[in-house]
Amino acid sequence: MQRTVFFVSDSTGITAETIGHSILTQFEGVDFDTHRMPFVNDADKAHAAVTRIKSAWARTGLRPIVINTAVDATLSEILGGSGALMLDVFAPFIGPLEHELGVRRHKLVNRAHGLFDAAKYEARIDATNYALAHDDGLDPSYKDADLILIGVSRSGKTPTCLYMALHFGLRAANYPLTPEDLELAELPKRLQGQRQRLFGLTITAERLAQIRAERRPDSRYASVEQCRWELAQADNLFRREGIAVLNSTHTSIEEIGSKILAQLGIERHLL
Amino acid sequence: MQRTVFFVSDSTGITAETIGHSILTQFEGVDFDTHRMPFVNDADKAHAAVTRIKSAWARTGLRPIVINTAVDATLSEILGGSGALMLDVFAPFIGPLEHELGVRRHKLVNRAHGLFDAAKYEARIDATNYALAHDDGLDPSYKDADLILIGVSRSGKTPTCLYMALHFGLRAANYPLTPEDLELAELPKRLQGQRQRLFGLTITAERLAQIRAERRPDSRYASVEQCRWELAQADNLFRREGIAVLNSTHTSIEEIGSKILAQLGIERHLL
Repeated sequence: MQRTVFFVSDSTGITAETIGHSILTQFEGVDFDTHRMPFVNDADKAHAAVTRIKSAWARTGLRPIVINTAVDATLSEILGGSGALMLDVFAPFIGPLEHELGVRRHKLVNRAHGLFDAAKYEARIDATNYALAHDDGLDPSYKDADLILIGVSRSGKTPTCLYMALHFGLRAANYPLTPEDLELAELPKRLQGQRQRLFGLTITAERLAQIRAERRPDSRYASVEQCRWELAQADNLFRREGIAVLNSTHTSIEEIGSKILAQLGIERHLL
Repeated sequence: MQRTVFFVSDSTGITAETIGHSILTQFEGVDFDTHRMPFVNDADKAHAAVTRIKSAWARTGLRPIVINTAVDATLSEILGGSGALMLDVFAPFIGPLEHELGVRRHKLVNRAHGLFDAAKYEARIDATNYALAHDDGLDPSYKDADLILIGVSRSGKTPTCLYMALHFGLRAANYPLTPEDLELAELPKRLQGQRQRLFGLTITAERLAQIRAERRPDSRYASVEQCRWELAQADNLFRREGIAVLNSTHTSIEEIGSKILAQLGIERHLL
């Protein structure tokens, strides 16, 4: 029988789910049935959550687990009335921090998830617009780019750029290495002088062929041979030019993003 | 003097930073200087981290705070040698969970951050491509859309759609309400029959005028009067048709995203 887990939050539930997921993956082999309950921000909603938790218990016969980021102690108390195993994400850290800092925390609901910051929001939106305007080599000017991703067609450049923009507010451009570019013995003209901002994206030939086949089945473009040649040429280019390379085959967008930040020496935070 | 905080992780550091940020915002008024240290995944890197932590202490005269998601106890021990206030994000929850589940957790490094899941990755990439192909009303078919965002030009549709795609793997399309659409007494033809999947995006007229002025300064398009008229017409349309409305002026992309999921009755998790 699956063990039911609820990620309960007075806001979006993203923090509860992020940490909850990290904790649960340390118990491999246990079958979890996870549910997110966002915006549990008043007593009525907390009571409704309790009803749901109890009904999961009755249905499965197993005590549910609640991973809770509600800051308001009243809400946590109501949730505790469900009898579930309560894991309060913030509680263990408040005491030690209050002691260290010599101040009491503020118990404002929603505070934990940050007040809306218009400047940061705009930076993300601006960066996203930049990424769209500089996708696939569209706009030839890279003077404002924080980074330029290069790689063969369908190697994962666009989603990575959009992620860097939406999350970090970074101006991420990308340039597709065409077969013509790959026959040259040097960096394409537009990329020269940009080496510090260049990142190469690679992928396995088999995976690339699969992705390309969805776009143009049975084409030379999608053949494993063509993919293999393009990728080998691109890898040569990256090596020759000393460009950092990231492989999107077995790496999540988050990991690629963090690696790019680390290489750029940026400790910029999630916006 | 600022209190230095390090978010230390054996992987991307996103979990450490997410929870760390949530905890720190509960101590409003304290001036924190935060740094992310990702990929601290061996003893050498942990010792290098300790050097950095100690030098921050020497520089500021204040004991640094370390928010740590390293799963490997050996690494946590090395980090603890810095003398900083150590807040181990996972530790408080492992004991209660082991007791509840009757199994020991696996102490594999990197496990906490999830193994790479190719199927989920593909769903995100596919959804991102879908969002790009269905941006700004480009592709007229909405038959595969999970949701369709509608709103006047520059109300924030595109970044929201990209976020829904990248995070939740949802096929998010968007349709711009033109002044011509807004003069009609009914939903634009292409949107009829889609009501369950429609979400209206709104924004204040002042903010919209500001955003539009960046694109076309001193235009009728960017005038507050024109913005006010379009927004009022759009709000009328949303009300008349019973379409859920989200305001992007004071709401983060994350909150808008979570609200859309809740309205759609989707408990889909972060991918």
